[in-house]
Amino acid sequence: MRWALGISYLGQAYDGWQSQPSGRTIQDHLESALAQFAAQPVSTVCAGRTDAGVHGLMQVVHFDTEVTREPFSWVRGTNSFLPPDIAVQWAQAVPDEFHSRASALARRYAYVLLESPVRPSIESGRAGWVFRPLDEAALREAATRLLGEHDFTSFRASACQAKSPVKTMRRIDITRHGPYWRFEFEANAFLHHMIRNIMGCLLAVGQGQRTPEWIAEVLAARDRDAAAPTFPPDGLYFLGPIYEPRWGLPDRTAAYDWLP
Amino acid sequence: MRWALGISYLGQAYDGWQSQPSGRTIQDHLESALAQFAAQPVSTVCAGRTDAGVHGLMQVVHFDTEVTREPFSWVRGTNSFLPPDIAVQWAQAVPDEFHSRASALARRYAYVLLESPVRPSIESGRAGWVFRPLDEAALREAATRLLGEHDFTSFRASACQAKSPVKTMRRIDITRHGPYWRFEFEANAFLHHMIRNIMGCLLAVGQGQRTPEWIAEVLAARDRDAAAPTFPPDGLYFLGPIYEPRWGLPDRTAAYDWLP
Repeated sequence: MRWALGISYLGQAYDGWQSQPSGRTIQDHLESALAQFAAQPVSTVCAGRTDAGVHGLMQVVHFDTEVTREPFSWVRGTNSFLPPDIAVQWAQAVPDEFHSRASALARRYAYVLLESPVRPSIESGRAGWVFRPLDEAALREAATRLLGEHDFTSFRASACQAKSPVKTMRRIDITRHGPYWRFEFEANAFLHHMIRNIMGCLLAVGQGQRTPEWIAEVLAARDRDAAAPTFPPDGLYFLGPIYEPRWGLPDRTAAYDWLP
Repeated sequence: MRWALGISYLGQAYDGWQSQPSGRTIQDHLESALAQFAAQPVSTVCAGRTDAGVHGLMQVVHFDTEVTREPFSWVRGTNSFLPPDIAVQWAQAVPDEFHSRASALARRYAYVLLESPVRPSIESGRAGWVFRPLDEAALREAATRLLGEHDFTSFRASACQAKSPVKTMRRIDITRHGPYWRFEFEANAFLHHMIRNIMGCLLAVGQGQRTPEWIAEVLAARDRDAAAPTFPPDGLYFLGPIYEPRWGLPDRTAAYDWLP
């Protein structure tokens, strides 16, 4: 039987999602916990791999097993073997055609940013930081240049394994709550480091070093060297994949609204 | 010259506020950072000591020094010697009569609680947890029993050094945002473990194990054994002291509104 799990985690302490020889990744911890609960090896496939330091609010994985358990037993049982900053939020049996990555129609990420003369403290590792005030109108104008289908080569890490650099950015929402900015991105898929590279460029505009029009130039260049340096992972949260309603999976975790 | 500093910190990694031989307290780190910046020893007095695992959003300290620096130099300079989860938020010269503890008219704390069948993950160490749904009306009724001047002996840790167990609870606000509850307390002063002991009792009521009236019985007993076990420190935040406006100190940190 195929199962889907929703998982939330803080990325600070881990070497990213994907299994590594170090054993210090989220996938390593998850598969180890599932194997302990199921008393047999379990291999998982995730909706979107996250880098070291990137957090997940609703990562989704699927796996196949002959072990029969109630849905909430998978949640509670697996969580008892996971570190305190990783937890399975839900478990649901799915048809064999469901595939956590291939069935995803789109993905959402949020970047949380502290704008303050003082560096983060309680937000350490969980928010990016700028000490210069941001120009909201310029930021919004810059963001519109990224909407729609584009070749995002300029925002792609050299290690990126995606087949095509052409992605469709459906939505970029910029909101503010006190000193905290939240940038929410929705695209059919994202390239490696794409959001961190976009954040570097948007903040160059927001801080007045570049004009909004420059974003269109960076896109058109199709050259990583045209863009700003990659912004730190601290404030990046994978909000989760979007699936067709027919799979009947939970839409979002409650934690989704916890961010500023 | 006397200076006041506002400080925010995550308590998870530290042995509480007060200096210890271990050197792993917030005060130890702060005084070490101040000494490095000022190039001479600095002794601080805080508004309210916090326990191991308790966080601070606007702790206030004062200290005396002959070293002359601009206010923001104290902030930036000291922060450069502090760990990433502790930061000075502001620095201000104050009259010699100002005393961070003695001048405080009142203190505010918040307790953040996750109500969910699934244990915390991204909130690990920063929120308490109950898996049973809470009865909001019962909680509110129970909280009213604690308002006003009372002998809080039943909610006092045996190690408490306060001269008197009589304190005045001015306000308890209970709010909810999705699965997160926030309990905000304001009193002239708090006894050791007082809020964690109160939380244990309020949650016994909220989960239906006790009636709201029981809170009045616990108060009247003036006996620690009458109350529920001490609740974990994870969700406890010192929001800061309240001073007379004449000192002209900042009222609150921006981070204050960051909590659910």
